Amino acid sequence: MRNKFDVELEALNTDLIEMGSMIETAIASSITALIQRDLHSAERAIEYDNEIDEMERRIERRCLKLLLQQQPVATDLRTISTALKIITDMERIGDQAADISEIVTRLAGEKDLLEIKNLKKMAEATIKMVNQSIDAFVAKDPVLSNEVIAYDDVVDDLFNQSKTELIHAIQTDSRYGEQFVDLLMIAKYFERIGDHAVNIAEWVVFSITGQHKNQKIL
Amino acid sequence: MRNKFDVELEALNTDLIEMGSMIETAIASSITALIQRDLHSAERAIEYDNEIDEMERRIERRCLKLLLQQQPVATDLRTISTALKIITDMERIGDQAADISEIVTRLAGEKDLLEIKNLKKMAEATIKMVNQSIDAFVAKDPVLSNEVIAYDDVVDDLFNQSKTELIHAIQTDSRYGEQFVDLLMIAKYFERIGDHAVNIAEWVVFSITGQHKNQKIL
Repeated sequence: MRNKFDVELEALNTDLIEMGSMIETAIASSITALIQRDLHSAERAIEYDNEIDEMERRIERRCLKLLLQQQPVATDLRTISTALKIITDMERIGDQAADISEIVTRLAGEKDLLEIKNLKKMAEATIKMVNQSIDAFVAKDPVLSNEVIAYDDVVDDLFNQSKTELIHAIQTDSRYGEQFVDLLMIAKYFERIGDHAVNIAEWVVFSITGQHKNQKIL
Repeated sequence: MRNKFDVELEALNTDLIEMGSMIETAIASSITALIQRDLHSAERAIEYDNEIDEMERRIERRCLKLLLQQQPVATDLRTISTALKIITDMERIGDQAADISEIVTRLAGEKDLLEIKNLKKMAEATIKMVNQSIDAFVAKDPVLSNEVIAYDDVVDDLFNQSKTELIHAIQTDSRYGEQFVDLLMIAKYFERIGDHAVNIAEWVVFSITGQHKNQKIL
């Protein structure tokens, strides 16, 4: 028979998977909003941010209860501290999906300038990283985690290319300077989302191996 | 005689004041780094970020211990939940001071483009907001908190002016497009730091009145 602690740990895992799926939805909505200039999707991503925040607090409370009532050791302790770290990165991804959507909302009615090819590529690359980091977490898969970590270079390169492309756009079409800067901010948010996906992947590796790249932060 | 709980609450308050002073130092260092192109100050702000992160974890542990061992109610509960919220905003200010300093480090050796007047004004306005929000917290001063909240409009206006100025700079001096974009990112970090100072001020108001602008997030 499974004990109460295992049941609660399982419930924690289910909540984390749900929160992961929430941020996948949020980022997908913000990208649809951006690419298709769809304000309903933008609204959805912004609303989702509140739900994600609530989910973060629910998981936090669950972790604290487990930590303080059960005083877990070794692997279980690692599982719980990983959960506390991962939800912080998930929550920030939710924030950034909302930030992107707010810019999209502000740009509604303006000329469609989304010919910036690298920005679309960034959107695709970033959502891939987020989805894979969640998959790696759900499957406790260190190989997939390492793929996510390696893929960050692709997103960083795309960010630099988007930046160059947008600087050029600002210089050649002075009417749309402000809008191009807004797109630059979106590129920056994508780059940051990629960083948070890397963090999640690094925490997955830690939860399996007990080793984290940056031991100091533990 | 004061009981153990009051003593621990007092220790929490001391830690918070110390963390506040740490972020004041971090942001001051990052601004010195920016304005005087001083790499030692940049390094200091970056190193400080780790210390701030450690302080955040220490305060978090202290709050959790208080919450779970003492099961406080009413005012004390509010004090502890305010602390947990405030340290999140403080930690992000520390992150952004480090982000600014990293850009300054990258720009070392490049031409000094800091004639952007509004960016210097933003630095001054932002550090003022941060210092006042910490002062408001230490003194539990709702009037000063409301001044910080109102002052955010000044920083937002300065951000918009910096943006316009930088877009113009990118358009008129195409050689320095990348560096101007870096300065734009710095302006964005200042704007965000202002937002976090507002959050701190709003939490101070909450800790005194029990009322928070956004009740939903509690």
